[in-house]
Amino acid sequence: MQDHDVVGIGNAIVDILGRCDDAFLARFGRTKGSMQLVDAATVRELYDAMGPAVEVSGGSVANTMAGIASFGGKAGFIGKIADDQFGQVFQHDIRAAGVTFNTPPAVGSPEPTGRSLILVTPDGQRTMNTALGVSPQLGGGEVDAELIRSARILYLEGYLFDRPEAKAAFRQAADIAAKAGRQVALSLSDPFCVDRHRPEFLEFVKGSVDILFANEAEIISLYETATFEEAARRAQADNKLAALTRSEKGSLILSGDKLIPIKAAPVAKVVDTTGAGDLYAAGFLFGLATGRDHETAGKLGSLAAAEIISHIGARPEAKLAELARTAGLL
Amino acid sequence: MQDHDVVGIGNAIVDILGRCDDAFLARFGRTKGSMQLVDAATVRELYDAMGPAVEVSGGSVANTMAGIASFGGKAGFIGKIADDQFGQVFQHDIRAAGVTFNTPPAVGSPEPTGRSLILVTPDGQRTMNTALGVSPQLGGGEVDAELIRSARILYLEGYLFDRPEAKAAFRQAADIAAKAGRQVALSLSDPFCVDRHRPEFLEFVKGSVDILFANEAEIISLYETATFEEAARRAQADNKLAALTRSEKGSLILSGDKLIPIKAAPVAKVVDTTGAGDLYAAGFLFGLATGRDHETAGKLGSLAAAEIISHIGARPEAKLAELARTAGLL
Repeated sequence: MQDHDVVGIGNAIVDILGRCDDAFLARFGRTKGSMQLVDAATVRELYDAMGPAVEVSGGSVANTMAGIASFGGKAGFIGKIADDQFGQVFQHDIRAAGVTFNTPPAVGSPEPTGRSLILVTPDGQRTMNTALGVSPQLGGGEVDAELIRSARILYLEGYLFDRPEAKAAFRQAADIAAKAGRQVALSLSDPFCVDRHRPEFLEFVKGSVDILFANEAEIISLYETATFEEAARRAQADNKLAALTRSEKGSLILSGDKLIPIKAAPVAKVVDTTGAGDLYAAGFLFGLATGRDHETAGKLGSLAAAEIISHIGARPEAKLAELARTAGLL
Repeated sequence: MQDHDVVGIGNAIVDILGRCDDAFLARFGRTKGSMQLVDAATVRELYDAMGPAVEVSGGSVANTMAGIASFGGKAGFIGKIADDQFGQVFQHDIRAAGVTFNTPPAVGSPEPTGRSLILVTPDGQRTMNTALGVSPQLGGGEVDAELIRSARILYLEGYLFDRPEAKAAFRQAADIAAKAGRQVALSLSDPFCVDRHRPEFLEFVKGSVDILFANEAEIISLYETATFEEAARRAQADNKLAALTRSEKGSLILSGDKLIPIKAAPVAKVVDTTGAGDLYAAGFLFGLATGRDHETAGKLGSLAAAEIISHIGARPEAKLAELARTAGLL
């Protein structure tokens, strides 16, 4: 098998993006900026109430893999779609982005392809309402060991912890990567997701993770600290390479005993923050996998995050490799 | 039933919009700027070859109805979707835009909801490859006579001539409208569509149409003239109210023995011309239905066309009523 820089495992999701105001979020009891898992009835209710939308392939780790490919890296993705129109959309878009994707669709499942109703408020913040659908039905047989071994880094999304089937596949993949001497990277995904699964996350981070991605709320939730600084110290004590993102304050990289602050790249107007963390991870992982230093990797992350929040949707519209060359980073 | 300003009948289509270069169009033998009907095998071949895409509800007359609603008008749409995910997307978006839409989805049809692979070149031009799917299966029983009679204007898309079933529904609707003393408007849709059905178009325009929409290529194709000016004279001789669009040259309104030239509204950057004609028609029809003079109606058309070509997709992102108020047109 051809070598890969990074292979990711995550939920295969199609995003349904529409605009709403803060009153709409309040009416449906939504916490701005969060990801909430919803059932089919709630999806219907919210979808009927929300305004016109556009459909764009999403999924946190899938977005990251599309970003790595846009940087010119070789990325692969493992995730479960159904044999339906949204599944075809997901498969088309990730392959068209240049990402290796061979997980067979579930045939005859009553569950559809996963979808996320993403409500974007006028401040550019996104609030996600996700029906995972068939996505957690990722069987052990679909964790492609050969693909995982072909990559320098395995990247996992915390959201997979939300369903036992997917979590099992996740642990199996981490085991395959570790045995092959590969690095394992994890995104904590969402503070509420961390809250739902804190003990397991802590055990997994300490025992199996080489590279940790988290934003301020997530790292504070993981270590249950009062401040970001305290949480960062705890992560440093756990001796992880960590990239902690802080929205417009940039990011902080914990690298051994060093703290490397990285500035956010400038953005003319924040249109939609969907995918900001995913694309930061794309830049950082691409940098690491291609042998760049941690500071450069962080700058590539900032650059990719800035591109993604300047338009609707969580897949890059510009060629990130060109942006990075223009910025003198490649 | 509540009164409507305009009710439209057209193909119910979900657009799959992606970018390509001119070489891609050449490789697949596509004529830039045209709409081509394709079969399922060609859809698959093109879709596999094209880059990542976004899905947005489309359909020429459906776009026009969404535009009228965005101006604050009351619009209704009649069109056939399948009972599938793209059908749900279409139904959601048109209702969320505020358009009355009650055509029942086809249940158990082997044909999916219609889709159009739209390839956007760097110059902003769009080239459409449409698989009509279930869309032409609009039965006579679905031509909602009460809805048609509730509207001042019935608006029909020329594309419906491409399938005999849809054409029958189209003629039936025109008959209902005429008997109720309503006006009948027609868009010629596409020069190649006109070429495929010229005798029927000519007969229908002369006998049943009160308001005609066409671009330069379409009106030249209809009358088989050498120049635009000659085609315009022929349309004027046929005594139609006509709005002839000319891209960046604006439009020309034929109103009795008057010719009213309308300037194109300025656009900072043409991103995607998909829907330009549809939204021009939205402004013009909204203006007519709400009792504005022909020049103001034309200016409303230019304003809506300028909004739609400044972003991806053929449904308005801005509230057209607000843009029109700012421009002093409402």
